[in-house]
Amino acid sequence: MAILDYIEKNKQRFLDELFELLRIPSISALPDHAPDMQRAAEKWVEILKKAGVDKAEVCPTDGPPVVYAEKIIDPAKPTVLVYAHYDVMPVDPVNLWKTPPFEPVVKDGRIWGRGANDDKGQSFMHAKVFEYMTSTGTLPCNVKFMIEGEEEIGSGNMLKWCKANKERLKADVILVSDTGMFGQQDPSITTGLRGLTYVEVEVTGPNKDLHSGLFGGAVANPANVLCRMIASLHDEKGRVTVKGFYDDVQIVSDADRAALAKAPFNLEEYKKALDIAEVAGEEGYTTIERTGIRPALDVNGIWSGYTGEGSKTVIPSKANAKISMRLVPNQNYTKIGQLFKEHFESIAPPTVKVAVTMHHGGPAYVSPTDSPAYKAAHAAYTEAFGKEPVPFRSGGSIPIIAAFERELGVKSILMGFGLESDAIHSPNESYCLFNFYKGIETIAGFYKHFAK
Amino acid sequence: MAILDYIEKNKQRFLDELFELLRIPSISALPDHAPDMQRAAEKWVEILKKAGVDKAEVCPTDGPPVVYAEKIIDPAKPTVLVYAHYDVMPVDPVNLWKTPPFEPVVKDGRIWGRGANDDKGQSFMHAKVFEYMTSTGTLPCNVKFMIEGEEEIGSGNMLKWCKANKERLKADVILVSDTGMFGQQDPSITTGLRGLTYVEVEVTGPNKDLHSGLFGGAVANPANVLCRMIASLHDEKGRVTVKGFYDDVQIVSDADRAALAKAPFNLEEYKKALDIAEVAGEEGYTTIERTGIRPALDVNGIWSGYTGEGSKTVIPSKANAKISMRLVPNQNYTKIGQLFKEHFESIAPPTVKVAVTMHHGGPAYVSPTDSPAYKAAHAAYTEAFGKEPVPFRSGGSIPIIAAFERELGVKSILMGFGLESDAIHSPNESYCLFNFYKGIETIAGFYKHFAK
Repeated sequence: MAILDYIEKNKQRFLDELFELLRIPSISALPDHAPDMQRAAEKWVEILKKAGVDKAEVCPTDGPPVVYAEKIIDPAKPTVLVYAHYDVMPVDPVNLWKTPPFEPVVKDGRIWGRGANDDKGQSFMHAKVFEYMTSTGTLPCNVKFMIEGEEEIGSGNMLKWCKANKERLKADVILVSDTGMFGQQDPSITTGLRGLTYVEVEVTGPNKDLHSGLFGGAVANPANVLCRMIASLHDEKGRVTVKGFYDDVQIVSDADRAALAKAPFNLEEYKKALDIAEVAGEEGYTTIERTGIRPALDVNGIWSGYTGEGSKTVIPSKANAKISMRLVPNQNYTKIGQLFKEHFESIAPPTVKVAVTMHHGGPAYVSPTDSPAYKAAHAAYTEAFGKEPVPFRSGGSIPIIAAFERELGVKSILMGFGLESDAIHSPNESYCLFNFYKGIETIAGFYKHFAK
Repeated sequence: MAILDYIEKNKQRFLDELFELLRIPSISALPDHAPDMQRAAEKWVEILKKAGVDKAEVCPTDGPPVVYAEKIIDPAKPTVLVYAHYDVMPVDPVNLWKTPPFEPVVKDGRIWGRGANDDKGQSFMHAKVFEYMTSTGTLPCNVKFMIEGEEEIGSGNMLKWCKANKERLKADVILVSDTGMFGQQDPSITTGLRGLTYVEVEVTGPNKDLHSGLFGGAVANPANVLCRMIASLHDEKGRVTVKGFYDDVQIVSDADRAALAKAPFNLEEYKKALDIAEVAGEEGYTTIERTGIRPALDVNGIWSGYTGEGSKTVIPSKANAKISMRLVPNQNYTKIGQLFKEHFESIAPPTVKVAVTMHHGGPAYVSPTDSPAYKAAHAAYTEAFGKEPVPFRSGGSIPIIAAFERELGVKSILMGFGLESDAIHSPNESYCLFNFYKGIETIAGFYKHFAK
């Protein structure tokens, strides 16, 4: 039976099964949901056993468990290792949801609910392609699954589990559907992810909040000082001024930049969607390049003094900010953190004290576009969509992907089918039925071409 | 009977009576306390009647009532109009108080409780001086009292009440104890108060919070933009860059600057008390001048993006700040607000939208130092403290004082006896018994010299 016939025949059952998974509120950020993490992992074991794996197990970690499963048809054949995550983001502000986040529904051609796309909807496609191949006797290679429960909070225990399970995780390629594509008619393959260094800074002035009348103009105000320091982190060309920041940045070839420029990107639509009059960024680069191949520095949060209703005349004692840097290949995220700390301390005036602390981080990742796996993906998209996919470097970060390469020595192929409009991480997350079924078709094509 | 004997004989009674006033939680900022405002006003009528006024009444306004009282001994004699306020600041964070804020106690030579200084303790001195003069037949002039209940929230209804009562508020001088002095052994008279313009700004970038990975480096981040805009509000000499900001600033004469320089101000102690390595401010001015005779601009609050625990990778849609400007004589606070708005809008880059809204404000105030009232105060301090008082321009603002001059045509004399260590507006407010009794002695001296 051809994949399209199989999908057509099982359409409703696929949704019913996915909805069972979507109903489990497996929010990794909230410790109260620990039992839900266990339930979601057990549900995955059930899904994979039903789909035909030889064995599947819930592997405990110090956090949410990891699900491991495999079907080895012939050790001499290539092995695909599917990576996914069953945890989801918190749902607040829950009052903005039009339907309850854990009561999935289909409406207007979309599945609505937390995890509909990220990553339950996308990962479930892999289970169904596997089921198709085993039930039709067309499975062309060995397949392994590793499905974790804390991707949304940094994959700390997943990394430990990987290190302890290198032997059974041996594979030729890691296959992941946890990213997006340009549009329903514009297939793309994510070939790059940026790295991340996330820091928090605190500027301390006077030892207590002061009356801004009695002291204003005579004492350095930490809020004003922090603004000056942050302002100085970019120069007039939009470049980050942290000393050494660009030293290791990988220069992308003109050929690769030309390939990126082929993306069906419309600047006017982009500005309109964000309701901005102008874009901004590093001089000499396009918008796609600014997020794809160039690093960036952003304030993610800033707070100081009185932030309630009305007015309070205070010179705050402290001012704080959360600042993150998105990194590109070759930039070392711990080194960048250290450079930032040294730079930020060096620009502090003698009127204040400065403290810089590190949050999480991770390196950038790049997929080669000449590997057999990439070529298989390219062929599969071309067949399914009737149009060649565009290689695309996303500005986002999935730190575990770079860790897989480092720890397991295996590259990943990011076959993501999400759309910008899916609102992952936000209220009213959704996933288009078109993308769900087209994703199953495309992934099936990947196996066919990869194992040829 | 001499004033010192009168004080000695009535010491404990003065405290007992003051404590009755301090026990009333007359917090003007909290609407729930409206009944307490009424109770405090009625308590003042009782205090003043007992002290010997001809008549005293609770005058309703659209907010807390104003207490008015008078004793006219001879229309041909000069009239002193005492201004004070019976409202107090909120008490949160209440867990930082060592004793309950509305259960006053004496300990370590101080009265502890909300309002102990500001302004119940200071204003009560006037009632007791008046009582002394009436009970000993030494009242040398007419005395009027106006005691309001919303000084801490802007005196809006007090101003309306003043406008409607100009006739009966006629006076030669307004006497106020609602400020501080340099030290217990360093008497000073506040001869200036700064004006205030308080604004709030909002910078809007994209129409929703964005993922900082997917968009970072390609879209103007309103938090970064706001920092740049705020940083540009001062130049490298510490001067405010708002166009026209200094145009109307009154230039203080060298003689007046020399007089200010006589203040017993110790820069090392000032820095030590605030735990700062360096002071900061406009080049060419001393610390006392920077708060006394020069305007200033401060961020009083700033907020944008994620400010909770841990990290969130977001480009905020909006960034906000509360910014206040302290003004000196001749600067018009509404004009300065307009100049700020025009300037801030003019420096906004095309990547964002900016909105500026006005909060409250008020003009600066200066007391002449050659008036009969000032001379009487000067003589009274010199006698009571055995040391000449220093004229001092405070950086703070009491907008109603400038309004009195404008509406009633009467100058004020600011005989304040508070100390920096009294922690007004903060938890554990206190007022030294020494200053309380010395204040009564000094104010009695003022009447003696003023009505000579």
